[in-house]
Amino acid sequence: MTPAPTPAYRRLSVEERRSQLLTAALTLFAHRAPEDVSLDDVAEAAGVSRPLVYRYFPGGKQQLYEAALRSAAEELQHCFDEPLEGALLPRLSRALDRYLSFVDGHDTGFSALLQGGSVVETSRTTAIVDGVRRAAAEHIYRHLGVTDPGPRLRMTVRTWITAVEAASLIWLDEDKQPPVQELRDWLVEQFVAVLTVTAARDPQTAAVVGALADDGRD
Amino acid sequence: MTPAPTPAYRRLSVEERRSQLLTAALTLFAHRAPEDVSLDDVAEAAGVSRPLVYRYFPGGKQQLYEAALRSAAEELQHCFDEPLEGALLPRLSRALDRYLSFVDGHDTGFSALLQGGSVVETSRTTAIVDGVRRAAAEHIYRHLGVTDPGPRLRMTVRTWITAVEAASLIWLDEDKQPPVQELRDWLVEQFVAVLTVTAARDPQTAAVVGALADDGRD
Repeated sequence: MTPAPTPAYRRLSVEERRSQLLTAALTLFAHRAPEDVSLDDVAEAAGVSRPLVYRYFPGGKQQLYEAALRSAAEELQHCFDEPLEGALLPRLSRALDRYLSFVDGHDTGFSALLQGGSVVETSRTTAIVDGVRRAAAEHIYRHLGVTDPGPRLRMTVRTWITAVEAASLIWLDEDKQPPVQELRDWLVEQFVAVLTVTAARDPQTAAVVGALADDGRD
Repeated sequence: MTPAPTPAYRRLSVEERRSQLLTAALTLFAHRAPEDVSLDDVAEAAGVSRPLVYRYFPGGKQQLYEAALRSAAEELQHCFDEPLEGALLPRLSRALDRYLSFVDGHDTGFSALLQGGSVVETSRTTAIVDGVRRAAAEHIYRHLGVTDPGPRLRMTVRTWITAVEAASLIWLDEDKQPPVQELRDWLVEQFVAVLTVTAARDPQTAAVVGALADDGRD
């Protein structure tokens, strides 16, 4: 048997090569601030030459960063895939488990991206992040069984999503303390608490909170 | 009596001139996105020539934006000045009233700044905004009578501050609905609710929540 070819010399299709470069870039951007990743680093991590990276990403680091970000955003959106069955809060817990494990696995990149002021942050990268936030909100409305969320419910859900992001960043900043399960339970309880506050002023949210309570009794 | 000289021809001291330019810039940046404000606009609004603006801000628009931002950050921090006396939640309400009136008065600039991806956003502008967030957290700990906040209380307070920012942006985005007094009450109630969730796991936060409850009974 001949030994398997090393990655550098394997013949890859255009799609495979692109995906290999993206994976290498994503791993680097995940654990270093974007300004600390060079195209040479990406070429080295993928075992290819720098000109090859440029052939796939003629826009250089900015283009590669945005492509990596788009691929991370897709991965992140998969965290929200949760069947519309069973009690609601356990569904939310499972989605948060996946989200927090994403945060854990992309720590530095996640912080750099969300903390802003990065050299490669542009209105396009901001739009990608906003797309993920919007998708998260849509998932939540669907799970809550709400098709036309009013302004008070929307503000509550969107504010909670930002609170989840903020808590994730603080968690990374505090050496991933408290333990991730405690953070997840805390976020779920925060969700119920903030909905309950809104419910006092908004019949739509009150119905949602009522459904959550009934759910817990099943 | 001779008529008052027009602003363009009044002799101002260096400090007065600088402050006049900053005020003009701040007004423009408050109601337009930074990319839509030119140095010519600032010169025109201040009734001076463009070279004069450059003499005071040789770094051009970026320097002027950062100086305007620093001056807005100072103004914003004054919102938090609240005597350490009387019941706690009314103190928080008064600080939020001032904060929300700042948001109302700087709507576009406030959104542009916090939403990121702006052409003039840099690690320096991000640091200025983070400074305001830190100051807000320190004010809250002081009012709560906590000198050494533990990680769970810190996470709760910092997350709530981000939630306030997010709610402000959504409020601007939703044509300033619901009415500002409702938003302010909702934010105060959210504060108590999120602290109460944390209190179940953290004795320090439980003591704070206990003090808030006693306070309400005075």
